[in-house]
Amino acid sequence: MKVIVDLCVVPIGVGVSVSKYVAECQKVLQEAGLEHQLHAYGTNIEGDWDEVFTAIKHCHERVHALGAPRITTTIKAGTRTDRAQTMQDKIDSVTENKN
Amino acid sequence: MKVIVDLCVVPIGVGVSVSKYVAECQKVLQEAGLEHQLHAYGTNIEGDWDEVFTAIKHCHERVHALGAPRITTTIKAGTRTDRAQTMQDKIDSVTENKN
Amino acid sequence: MKVIVDLCVVPIGVGVSVSKYVAECQKVLQEAGLEHQLHAYGTNIEGDWDEVFTAIKHCHERVHALGAPRITTTIKAGTRTDRAQTMQDKIDSVTENKN
Amino acid sequence: MKVIVDLCVVPIGVGVSVSKYVAECQKVLQEAGLEHQLHAYGTNIEGDWDEVFTAIKHCHERVHALGAPRITTTIKAGTRTDRAQTMQDKIDSVTENKN
Repeated sequence: MKVIVDLCVVPIGVGVSVSKYVAECQKVLQEAGLEHQLHAYGTNIEGDWDEVFTAIKHCHERVHALGAPRITTTIKAGTRTDRAQTMQDKIDSVTENKN
Repeated sequence: MKVIVDLCVVPIGVGVSVSKYVAECQKVLQEAGLEHQLHAYGTNIEGDWDEVFTAIKHCHERVHALGAPRITTTIKAGTRTDRAQTMQDKIDSVTENKN
Repeated sequence: MKVIVDLCVVPIGVGVSVSKYVAECQKVLQEAGLEHQLHAYGTNIEGDWDEVFTAIKHCHERVHALGAPRITTTIKAGTRTDRAQTMQDKIDSVTENKN
Repeated sequence: MKVIVDLCVVPIGVGVSVSKYVAECQKVLQEAGLEHQLHAYGTNIEGDWDEVFTAIKHCHERVHALGAPRITTTIKAGTRTDRAQTMQDKIDSVTENKN
């Protein structure tokens, strides 16, 4: 099952600057070979459900390993069985207002 | 790794009434033997990371199988390494304002 | 316009324990006279759109005033024009699987 | 109070294709003169709290007016009092891993 995800990992108890931890998650996604795109309030990811959610688990493990005692993450996850759709397709559909 | 999750599964393309699909997810969680609590805008779940996210995947599979061509799900996921915490602990902490 | 909201306010930069700040938000909601129900990963609120979102703004102001330099909040907001629905109605619909 | 928001509006009861409604929200944001950036699972917005949340309310009103009987929206909202930060700053911080 293919999934498109929006991921926002927030480490708690490490002070006000969190970009080191978000950058670590970017590394996890790159190492996993997953298509992903950083934006100002999260990261979009597309891929096989199991691969994507395994990577999200690794994000939590790696952010804890960097010293964050607590993490709260927000995930949006979209699946569809009617047709294939990439992250770019979703953007194009809105831009062209044709989907 | 233990996780506390807030799960909100929204089937798209099945009309305005979605409770049949949400009820199916409740069944999935019960069958998985996971501690869970329905509220007005989602369901709280606690358990082992892999068991919880396997159940969430099954929710998508079962809701698609019921006829929903598209699903968008919102998940909040919290982990902590400093101490154990249950869903009830979180509620108690706020109520007693002591955490 | 009536809205049902799920609100989860997360203060950043105040250490690992956040319940003092969540408890402050409960006070804001009570002072606003809004129907609300705390759960393990947020608070459900129902009311007029403007009153609910004014209260959410006050939550941010009050949590900053308590000393949190940064806040990230997750909100789910549901509106419908086909019929009136309360938070309890939503829970009943799933429990009875009839909506 | 300045806010950075991630907005994802999902119309329910209008079939499987929702991009017409998302495109309407883009128009609302443009008409409001708010800085915003569409991504594959939502739209980032920055601006004054009241202006941003007024625009989000207008999104709900306009999507209902287009025929959607039910809407569920997910919002992430970030505020900070320690320093000013734009959407681009957030992306740069992660990319440079310096915040």
